[in-house]
Amino acid sequence: MQTLTVSLADRSYSIHIGSGLLARAESYAPFIAGKTVAIVTNETIAPLYLPQVKAAVLSLGKSIIEIILPDGEEHKTFTSLDKIHTAMLAAACDRKTTIIALGGGVIGDVAGFAAATYQRGVPFIQVPTTLLSQVDSSVGGKTAINHPLGKNMIGAFYQPLAVISDTDTLKTLPPREYASGLAEVVKHALIFDVDHFAELEANVDALNARDASVLTRVIAHSCKIKADVVKQDERETKDIRALLNLGHTFGHAIETEMGYGAWFHGEAVAAGTVLAAQFSRDEWGGADIDLPSIERLLTSLNLPTKAPKVAAQKLLAHMQRDKKNEDGVVTLILLKRIGEAYVDRRVPGAKLLAFLERAVA
Amino acid sequence: MQTLTVSLADRSYSIHIGSGLLARAESYAPFIAGKTVAIVTNETIAPLYLPQVKAAVLSLGKSIIEIILPDGEEHKTFTSLDKIHTAMLAAACDRKTTIIALGGGVIGDVAGFAAATYQRGVPFIQVPTTLLSQVDSSVGGKTAINHPLGKNMIGAFYQPLAVISDTDTLKTLPPREYASGLAEVVKHALIFDVDHFAELEANVDALNARDASVLTRVIAHSCKIKADVVKQDERETKDIRALLNLGHTFGHAIETEMGYGAWFHGEAVAAGTVLAAQFSRDEWGGADIDLPSIERLLTSLNLPTKAPKVAAQKLLAHMQRDKKNEDGVVTLILLKRIGEAYVDRRVPGAKLLAFLERAVA
Repeated sequence: MQTLTVSLADRSYSIHIGSGLLARAESYAPFIAGKTVAIVTNETIAPLYLPQVKAAVLSLGKSIIEIILPDGEEHKTFTSLDKIHTAMLAAACDRKTTIIALGGGVIGDVAGFAAATYQRGVPFIQVPTTLLSQVDSSVGGKTAINHPLGKNMIGAFYQPLAVISDTDTLKTLPPREYASGLAEVVKHALIFDVDHFAELEANVDALNARDASVLTRVIAHSCKIKADVVKQDERETKDIRALLNLGHTFGHAIETEMGYGAWFHGEAVAAGTVLAAQFSRDEWGGADIDLPSIERLLTSLNLPTKAPKVAAQKLLAHMQRDKKNEDGVVTLILLKRIGEAYVDRRVPGAKLLAFLERAVA
Repeated sequence: MQTLTVSLADRSYSIHIGSGLLARAESYAPFIAGKTVAIVTNETIAPLYLPQVKAAVLSLGKSIIEIILPDGEEHKTFTSLDKIHTAMLAAACDRKTTIIALGGGVIGDVAGFAAATYQRGVPFIQVPTTLLSQVDSSVGGKTAINHPLGKNMIGAFYQPLAVISDTDTLKTLPPREYASGLAEVVKHALIFDVDHFAELEANVDALNARDASVLTRVIAHSCKIKADVVKQDERETKDIRALLNLGHTFGHAIETEMGYGAWFHGEAVAAGTVLAAQFSRDEWGGADIDLPSIERLLTSLNLPTKAPKVAAQKLLAHMQRDKKNEDGVVTLILLKRIGEAYVDRRVPGAKLLAFLERAVA
């Protein structure tokens, strides 16, 4: 097991990564103060892991409320949020009730937002069961639901008491979903850590084999990178946390244009990261960027490096609606070289359009 | 004008109290960074004060979105919250958009919760237009909406950038609503400040005449008391902030039993405060409590001191469902003497029932 701390003053918490953690009562014991625990999960995860988590929590003498949501991004809605709140109110849950989020990013986001807002905030433990949520969404306290007019538009910054990342859960992930999680790992390396990039290049085979010890090390390293960023810029008010959106402005445009679900988030981020790197190198002075190495690593991890062929004008329109934008200017995260990224708010729409017309043709 | 600061590290903010503040651009100018301001108000307040606030904000070169909710506690719901979010998304509001809450406690609570959750948090200014919201709900960052299964059950702690309390708005308040606000002022004095209690006794006539200079002084003093409490216990995790609920456990039970709206909140708090004082004195060792002075002050401020005649068992049942309770034990705020309160979690239900049977008979 590896443990690291996300340092956020009175909101600091620990991330525990390793094999078999999910079924152990000791994983949860230090973080449950009240008598009741509400476990939020979905219909896919429940048969796989809910019995173990329940047994562990019951052995601590706690009573349990199960809240099982339908699976899928389309259920990251107010309806799911209200289902959690209503179940907890019906069971007379008080402010010491702990919410455990057992599942991927959708469960973490909606259960986290429920924890942030139930009686103005209750204790919360993340048990992420996908690679994407273990390296990305469980670190940093972003919670949200989607609104009919936009993804992640309603939410809160709310930190868990602990994250329990059991690498055994990754064994059952479908291949595309697993690869999609690796896209965020590569992204963290590209933004902040050339040594981590080299570590990933050296461990491609072990990663593709889902080797538990390599995964524990790589997930811990990736979380550490993100935790350092979150520590410096918890609420994304400076430009540091925004760097984590490398590939995401292009990626969200691809996801939106293709319809959610057609491309996995990580796949769109991979193709979006290549676009960001290519734009940085060819149009914005990033001569030092080793684009072939980026494309080679992504390809070897079974990720796409080419955006789908869609109208450049449509992608640009999606990018211009991004949440990071302020007062109408498109914000882009661009690369200087592998291991170093920066925020740019000066790219003219026309230049971006001309680039997209060449790049996605 | 009087100004005081609520000291909460990076969430500190200032409260400005005085005559005519609402129409002045300078009241808002330091707190609006983006280009757009969303003003949230209700159908009663809009014709009275929206034109002045709009003119002030427009003079700063900002664009304005108006969101006018129906008036009343029954609209403190998800529907109203969603109306705010949807209007802001439709207008492409970004994370620099400032929300101004113009109205009483309901508007402050729902607009504050909208600000806490729109794109994970946007800047927020409170412009409270009732005495209750000027001395109580605008201080301390509690935001919430009601849920069909309970009042204020869904919400967040979220601090405004500033509170602008214009005493001129109190001139148009209906008498019962004005008196209801004074109940919270008396409550603050009873809990923390015997000198403030004496100040209130000495200024009964001026308060009943709504004298602007006395009101400015009294509101500032009352806010100062609450701000000191919030500073020590922002998230109500210690027992300090809970003291502010003096009279509220009894009061909420009265409100619930009578049906919301039959009794004003402050009226129920006044009668609840007398019950808490009486229980403290007669049943719980508070021999020093000068109950006649408390009753005399409340009566002179046109507030009730007697609970309605309802079944004691029903009141007890409501009290046992209070949000302050943890693990099933009723939490009561009780008095030692005027100016000193404490939290008690040891009162047996049977004793409370016997007291209620005598007191509300």
